[in-house]
Amino acid sequence: MERVEILDSTLRDGVQGEGIYYSVEDKINVVRALDEIGVDYIEAGNPSSNPKDMEFFERVKALRLQYAQLVAFGSTRKAGVAVEEDAGCRALILAGTEVVTIFGKSWGFHVREVLHTTPEENLKMISDTVSYFVTHGKTVFFDAEHFFDGYREDPAYAMQCLGAAATAGAARLILCDTNGGTFPDAAAKAVAQVKERVSVPLGVHAHDDMGCAVALSLQAVQAGARQVQGTFLGFGERCGNANLSAIIPSLQMKLGYRCIPEENLPQLTHTARYLAEVTNYILPGGLPYVGRSAFAHKAGMHVDGVMKNSRSFEHISPEAVGNRRNVLLSEVSGRTALLKRIQAIDPTQTKDSPAVRKALEAVKELEYRGYQFESAGASMEILLHKQLGLFTPFFELEHFKIIGEQFASGEEQPAAAMIKVRVDHREEITAAEGAGPVNALDQALRKALEVFYPSLAEVRLIDYKVRVMEPRDATAAIVRVLIESTDGRQVWTTVGASQDIIQASWLALVDSIEYKLLQDSKRMP
Amino acid sequence: MERVEILDSTLRDGVQGEGIYYSVEDKINVVRALDEIGVDYIEAGNPSSNPKDMEFFERVKALRLQYAQLVAFGSTRKAGVAVEEDAGCRALILAGTEVVTIFGKSWGFHVREVLHTTPEENLKMISDTVSYFVTHGKTVFFDAEHFFDGYREDPAYAMQCLGAAATAGAARLILCDTNGGTFPDAAAKAVAQVKERVSVPLGVHAHDDMGCAVALSLQAVQAGARQVQGTFLGFGERCGNANLSAIIPSLQMKLGYRCIPEENLPQLTHTARYLAEVTNYILPGGLPYVGRSAFAHKAGMHVDGVMKNSRSFEHISPEAVGNRRNVLLSEVSGRTALLKRIQAIDPTQTKDSPAVRKALEAVKELEYRGYQFESAGASMEILLHKQLGLFTPFFELEHFKIIGEQFASGEEQPAAAMIKVRVDHREEITAAEGAGPVNALDQALRKALEVFYPSLAEVRLIDYKVRVMEPRDATAAIVRVLIESTDGRQVWTTVGASQDIIQASWLALVDSIEYKLLQDSKRMP
Repeated sequence: MERVEILDSTLRDGVQGEGIYYSVEDKINVVRALDEIGVDYIEAGNPSSNPKDMEFFERVKALRLQYAQLVAFGSTRKAGVAVEEDAGCRALILAGTEVVTIFGKSWGFHVREVLHTTPEENLKMISDTVSYFVTHGKTVFFDAEHFFDGYREDPAYAMQCLGAAATAGAARLILCDTNGGTFPDAAAKAVAQVKERVSVPLGVHAHDDMGCAVALSLQAVQAGARQVQGTFLGFGERCGNANLSAIIPSLQMKLGYRCIPEENLPQLTHTARYLAEVTNYILPGGLPYVGRSAFAHKAGMHVDGVMKNSRSFEHISPEAVGNRRNVLLSEVSGRTALLKRIQAIDPTQTKDSPAVRKALEAVKELEYRGYQFESAGASMEILLHKQLGLFTPFFELEHFKIIGEQFASGEEQPAAAMIKVRVDHREEITAAEGAGPVNALDQALRKALEVFYPSLAEVRLIDYKVRVMEPRDATAAIVRVLIESTDGRQVWTTVGASQDIIQASWLALVDSIEYKLLQDSKRMP
Repeated sequence: MERVEILDSTLRDGVQGEGIYYSVEDKINVVRALDEIGVDYIEAGNPSSNPKDMEFFERVKALRLQYAQLVAFGSTRKAGVAVEEDAGCRALILAGTEVVTIFGKSWGFHVREVLHTTPEENLKMISDTVSYFVTHGKTVFFDAEHFFDGYREDPAYAMQCLGAAATAGAARLILCDTNGGTFPDAAAKAVAQVKERVSVPLGVHAHDDMGCAVALSLQAVQAGARQVQGTFLGFGERCGNANLSAIIPSLQMKLGYRCIPEENLPQLTHTARYLAEVTNYILPGGLPYVGRSAFAHKAGMHVDGVMKNSRSFEHISPEAVGNRRNVLLSEVSGRTALLKRIQAIDPTQTKDSPAVRKALEAVKELEYRGYQFESAGASMEILLHKQLGLFTPFFELEHFKIIGEQFASGEEQPAAAMIKVRVDHREEITAAEGAGPVNALDQALRKALEVFYPSLAEVRLIDYKVRVMEPRDATAAIVRVLIESTDGRQVWTTVGASQDIIQASWLALVDSIEYKLLQDSKRMP
């Protein structure tokens, strides 16, 4: 199988998307997930544009990556400035990655109207900058911005730009459809023509302004490109970038190229959903291959056809990409996956045990009510222990009350929570203040329980995410809360869902504490 | 300009999408909107599958349509049943449309495995059914289901199916990629080959399971198809249908075909947003041409480029499809963008006015505290009015109090909010319950203010988003709330940020209400 490299730009072009922001911690999590699925390159920002990016590049050095290489991103030097004096180029070196992407102009219109310089100076900017990084031992990918537009208007000049980068030692020439206005067949033709004339491997970088970025990328590969740039979920500036979660399986399962390790394909859906969670991005239900509805069948006839033979209304088997058929949830993948987890707790359980059936029903019911266990393994663990009759509650809630107040502007005051819990007939009542009602409740609950379970003093919450599930009902919508906790040794995530954000947070908080106590009780029986 | 017919199937294939439902009233509104923009055909359901569809076909007869024709949809007769006796075919006649779509099998695998009949009987089913409707004076479009799959496996039989329909008098032969697994170039090749051999005009019907439905439709047209079937917003079964709001402008503005009246193109965005509203569907921000972010620019360099010459980062002018450029405000893009907005309020302001400098400082300060104005234009509008001294508060808060309570599990109870506001020395105190504290506060605030401003009764919240900004501090992190509101005519978004989710929601709610009142006061000075 011929290799096609995948460069994911979620952390660079992706953050140009409206509403996309990452903390440094989020970025590290994105890098881990992309490495796990096995992309080749992770393009992760521009150190000169943002001090937070520098912190990220420092921290990322400590990660041991299995498959992927980090790529820092920057532009050719400024017109009329020596490359050694160019602040952006110098910052890029400091990122300390082995690979850098350098973007430069390849469209005369842009050289004139945006850079306000001459075609000759632009060629020098490309060759100076690529040389500079090659001399510093870097592998350089040259992103020829607006290549297809430039090639349409003035093919000779566009080729000169590529030539300048190639001669200076670029390892890849990436043909970009920066404005997203190129048709796939036109791009494929250009790729084939360029390939005739340069020996450096080509790549493609497409935007979705006509809804054709995926098709353009696939056809560019068939015409000879050997690197595809995009973002894993397709978000990015304007209409987004080429959606890698659609491109990878089409290339690999249908066209016979290898993009990621074959055994990782069934992780595709999991990776997409995990990235959506980290990004606080609502994954479109209809996203090819990985969307929740991608294999959902509603029409009676289609359901019937799929039951007779899944090939009748499905272009691939959903399991091949780790997704599942919606109507058959309980019959196939749901139960098998769940059984594995159940057997990890109680190895005597089998596929047909009543407990397994009951657990499956419980999961379905909760998912229907807005729960999502994909990234909340600790809540799943608690739930299964309960279903198997292996869980004894560590405490009982008697009552809590939260109060938030605000007076005429200026007089802010902390929210307060009062709580009463019971452990083995002993009661504890206490109260705490906090920044907002959830924080107050969290403080009060742990304060009350530490009296009985001193090890809870080690626990702290490290992440708190809120997702509105059915935004159409606005403030009365179902809210899902994910909480990530740690005791300094391990990290676990729990989930709660409710129309009431306080209630949803409460459910996730309780699961988090119960998970910690369950683990402790297993360690010291 | 050569004509390409557009058949919109929002009301037929569209309703196979997860979460898509229409009342009869909704359907009438969809028909009106599609007729206004000028599609040729509106496929609107299957009278035999749904009694509500019959009511719809009755009511729709009273509509005076300017451009579009209604199309009823049904299948070939059942195997072994005379067409005159077939309940589905008889119901289809009763729909009373001049045009009908008949779908039938063209893939041997489906004939055997799903229909459980012989290839010969299937051919008879096609020809009997098409003849029946032609005899009844109908114009018949034959949808060859799974055509591309069938053509790949057994081109001779697939062609026989088309031949049976053509001989029986079908007016169009529609080649369908029912499973969405055909590549655009393969489809285009098949279309070209079929076109060589049949004289009946061809159409194409694609699904988006590989993210290629738009490209497939465009390439099919270039290969000779003269009807494109899809749904206006792209939703439909599984990953959806070919997205007509992307296909129409690409065909018409870039490839020189005429799909809808030229003068209607600038209505495209309005139609898309209206259909989303009727469907209760959240239009993806990045939808090509019509999405809110389709012409949004965030990176400093791109904003700079677009200001110099819009062609530099836009493949078309947004106004051509009734959309608009959206310069996302962030620290990066800065003063130029802000100035444009300020001048829209007060044209006398210049780049160096103290007010502009002050406003920029205020925006930066708020962004530092977790605000984000790029998608919250209404909050920005309020802020700028305040900075320019052009804002008089519509009300003042005296005090609010929210209470949430929970007893031992089982006894859930609604949150409550009490609020006291003042307008021109008149006070109003009231209370409301809700699903969660924010919902209760929202209800109470509007209840109190409606006493003074009856127009607030029109306002409802349609989206509520919560984003935790620095998750490392967990429940005490900064929370950003975005609220989208509508009064039925326009939609606006506001933002609030605070450590306390109640406070953040409150700030966004207040902005939303003030924006509405500011707009009203401008309309009636």
